[in-house]
Amino acid sequence: RRARPVREVLFFPSRPCCIEALLAEAAEPGAPARPCPCPLPSGDTALSRLVRRLLSARRSLDLCLFSFSCPQLARAVQLLHRRGVRVRLVTDAQYMGLHGSQIGRLRHAGIQVRHDQHSGYMHHKFAIVDRRTLITGSLNWTTQAIQSNRENVLVVEDAEYVKAFQDEFERIWEEYNPANYSFF
Amino acid sequence: RRARPVREVLFFPSRPCCIEALLAEAAEPGAPARPCPCPLPSGDTALSRLVRRLLSARRSLDLCLFSFSCPQLARAVQLLHRRGVRVRLVTDAQYMGLHGSQIGRLRHAGIQVRHDQHSGYMHHKFAIVDRRTLITGSLNWTTQAIQSNRENVLVVEDAEYVKAFQDEFERIWEEYNPANYSFF
Repeated sequence: RRARPVREVLFFPSRPCCIEALLAEAAEPGAPARPCPCPLPSGDTALSRLVRRLLSARRSLDLCLFSFSCPQLARAVQLLHRRGVRVRLVTDAQYMGLHGSQIGRLRHAGIQVRHDQHSGYMHHKFAIVDRRTLITGSLNWTTQAIQSNRENVLVVEDAEYVKAFQDEFERIWEEYNPANYSFF
Repeated sequence: RRARPVREVLFFPSRPCCIEALLAEAAEPGAPARPCPCPLPSGDTALSRLVRRLLSARRSLDLCLFSFSCPQLARAVQLLHRRGVRVRLVTDAQYMGLHGSQIGRLRHAGIQVRHDQHSGYMHHKFAIVDRRTLITGSLNWTTQAIQSNRENVLVVEDAEYVKAFQDEFERIWEEYNPANYSFF
């Protein structure tokens, strides 16, 4: 589909930006744009690029995220789920219940979520779009990290890297299967 | 020097391992191996691979690390500094003073360290070896992360990715120059 594999680096903090137009276009492609009343610009930022990459999913989105509390990213993920993309989400048990976590909301929307039951952290922060595009780095999916921290995110379409992360995702997904809970 | 650029992914937790032989060989190449009395195996682990990559530095090592408290990795970095490799280290102001941090020890050894003076975190976790090999991921350089967490580290020799991170390092290095401190 694409001539050259994507190879991109996003650095944060990102300038605050409005992603309503991106979400609206993804929800209803081709619909007339309705201007958003919020005062934020809708320019090209690290956040808008990250959202665009996620919204490009057509078949699957595998998420392996230590901390997920950014409402904008949660809306993008919910939108993909509603659109029929198979979303699977692995997260950290200690962080999923913290104030502002979006995990409950995503579960409520019907998205499959699994978590560890160990004392160590599930500290990955990666996403795989359509088993082809790896999005990984230092960035937790929190508004604080996006707007305030120095962070990096790589976008990688190299098959070797993608396979390594996809295999790790499948290992974790199986290991965290609730059927295996020991309730110790 | 190498036919094919390195492309590796390390997943953690790493089995505990002894890296004395690696450090001894790097300190005094070709010297007769002295067996370490510790009970740990010295096998091929994610940690030993990470240490090997670092010890391959000949000219420069640029470190941009949110948290650095692993004594083994600190010893590897000190060894490179003693060997004449130009080591520069950027870290997070809030985390550099925490219990177990190796930053003081590295400064004491004469390694240049700079840190932010913001409330946001300097949350990167990357290293660049000889301006050619990028080592980046979710892993903070702490023993807890190495031994207990689910983490990833990519080793990348793709010039595009390396340049993006090298430029980010130079930007941060300049921005955190103590000459620019405002002491607000």
